[in-house]
Amino acid sequence: MSVLYVTEQGTTVHKLGRRLVVRKLGHVIETVHTFNLEQVILFGNIQLTAQATTFLLQEGIDTVFMGTGGRYRGRLVSGDGKNILLRRQQFRKAEEESFLLDIAQRFVRGKLNNCRTLLRRHQRQRPNDEIQTALLRINHSIRALAGTRSLDEIRGREGAGAAAYFGCFPRLILQEGFPFGGRTRRPPKDAVNALLSFGYTMLLGTVTTAIQVVGLDPFLGSLHAAENGKPSLVLDLMEEFRPLLVDAAVLRAINRRQMVPGDFLYQEDVEMPAELAGDEPPAREDYPVLLRPESIRKWILVYEQTLRQRVLYPPLGTQITWRQVVLEQARRLARHIKAEE
Amino acid sequence: MSVLYVTEQGTTVHKLGRRLVVRKLGHVIETVHTFNLEQVILFGNIQLTAQATTFLLQEGIDTVFMGTGGRYRGRLVSGDGKNILLRRQQFRKAEEESFLLDIAQRFVRGKLNNCRTLLRRHQRQRPNDEIQTALLRINHSIRALAGTRSLDEIRGREGAGAAAYFGCFPRLILQEGFPFGGRTRRPPKDAVNALLSFGYTMLLGTVTTAIQVVGLDPFLGSLHAAENGKPSLVLDLMEEFRPLLVDAAVLRAINRRQMVPGDFLYQEDVEMPAELAGDEPPAREDYPVLLRPESIRKWILVYEQTLRQRVLYPPLGTQITWRQVVLEQARRLARHIKAEE
Repeated sequence: MSVLYVTEQGTTVHKLGRRLVVRKLGHVIETVHTFNLEQVILFGNIQLTAQATTFLLQEGIDTVFMGTGGRYRGRLVSGDGKNILLRRQQFRKAEEESFLLDIAQRFVRGKLNNCRTLLRRHQRQRPNDEIQTALLRINHSIRALAGTRSLDEIRGREGAGAAAYFGCFPRLILQEGFPFGGRTRRPPKDAVNALLSFGYTMLLGTVTTAIQVVGLDPFLGSLHAAENGKPSLVLDLMEEFRPLLVDAAVLRAINRRQMVPGDFLYQEDVEMPAELAGDEPPAREDYPVLLRPESIRKWILVYEQTLRQRVLYPPLGTQITWRQVVLEQARRLARHIKAEE
Repeated sequence: MSVLYVTEQGTTVHKLGRRLVVRKLGHVIETVHTFNLEQVILFGNIQLTAQATTFLLQEGIDTVFMGTGGRYRGRLVSGDGKNILLRRQQFRKAEEESFLLDIAQRFVRGKLNNCRTLLRRHQRQRPNDEIQTALLRINHSIRALAGTRSLDEIRGREGAGAAAYFGCFPRLILQEGFPFGGRTRRPPKDAVNALLSFGYTMLLGTVTTAIQVVGLDPFLGSLHAAENGKPSLVLDLMEEFRPLLVDAAVLRAINRRQMVPGDFLYQEDVEMPAELAGDEPPAREDYPVLLRPESIRKWILVYEQTLRQRVLYPPLGTQITWRQVVLEQARRLARHIKAEE
């Protein structure tokens, strides 16, 4: 399975036989075979020809439109939401308190386990007291999870574990010039947070696709409460993938100097570059730190490499790519809802 | 509220300020202001520019891709399915047998009432015994509906009423050359059925939009059973609109000679025209009768004129267009599900 990312502004995506060809002013920039193509993500001002649109719809290849800043704009859908029998079962199960608690615990346990895995990996190479303390706290949160009796309690354990985890995160960053004062969202206040935020947006897309492929309603989850406009189930299923798919990729990109401080634009930079302002000008106060357009491509490649990594997936007893792991976890969730496992 | 239909092959839809401009080889074919634009429907080989795509997504204007034959291919969506609280209530209510029966009865009553309205209208102008007999049978079905105790019984009453209705339908057709031997779907076996089928596809789009605007799940209905791939709720809500929005439009188009037998291609015609074969060649046996490409435009205009007609809408005590009636009925359904009325 592969994904075509198109970030070069002013390009057009054509269909040529069984290939998608990305062209700009008549020059071919990229060609991908559509065999096994799972998703096409278009950032900003990218055009699809009518033939490419028809082809993507007919093949059921998920096509996502994003702003240049990585904001979600929309997608092309053909037979979305057809799997009504599974969806009805999902809504039925969501009425059962015990089911909700059990599944919310699983999501948080998965996340905290993976936070622990990431910290231990670094701890083996560069032992550090702060990381050791965080590991103890995370272990405590994981153990305490078993005794939780309400969603609020589960969220409390998750919060405590995540605070310990992000508290020692600066110890994992080995390149100078990347201060990290804790997780800040809307707006990300430093380069590390900017990478994390962009990465989580990418992950949101990956997980949304998996949930739509198996046919669940992305808006009805358990750990994240039902609230209009919030894709709760996507946020739920994302939890376990955050540490190993995004956080680990951020650390790798920084520590191997694939990303450097010059890849970012800071609020004090006087001019907002025209190509960023584009048709979706970000309010300056919303983006104290922003990835430079040319650096977005680098960061996407790091994320994409991570998704292509093969790892042992115990339920199948075999090695599959991270992207397949995401899909398999969504399938497992669907089977669990159908009470097949 | 208005809809932009683009049927001219090889055109591109551009955005120009607050207007959408349809161009072919540099010539402007159509311009629409986007104020109050509700939907864009593209038939076949039509291109959207990147700016137009972004604009349609940002404004939440429903954009639908259809084949030249009127087959649904897919759509552009931005925040689809965000209204999770309403949707959860919809799934809850669908578990209540008495709620399902009550609402299924309403859909069928609405449909049969409107069949009766259409027949009576013709009966006043050209009294006919067959129509009179059909009216008696339909009245009987409507009365019997009140005593139904299961969905199967309700469907039985609906079937009997529809059989009586379509049985006298030939009496309503006043132009020679339009034989009608009863309703035939996949494939439509005569020109009348071809018009009905294309019209119902258009109506399906109109009703789907209304259901998505109010935020209900189109796949969970009552009269039509939950079945993967079937938009049951759309089919439910469509029932009452079939007679007055599609059937009446078909009769008007034929009886006023807006459509003539030459508007259709019959299986015996030797060559399948290239512009129809296109990138989605219909199997000949699937389409014994097909609308000619240039006639599709005429038929869409008739349908569109019907949607723009103003009628008295009793719940509001005022005149609104049929398109608004469809939206109001979807809203009423949502309020009924939320138990607000």
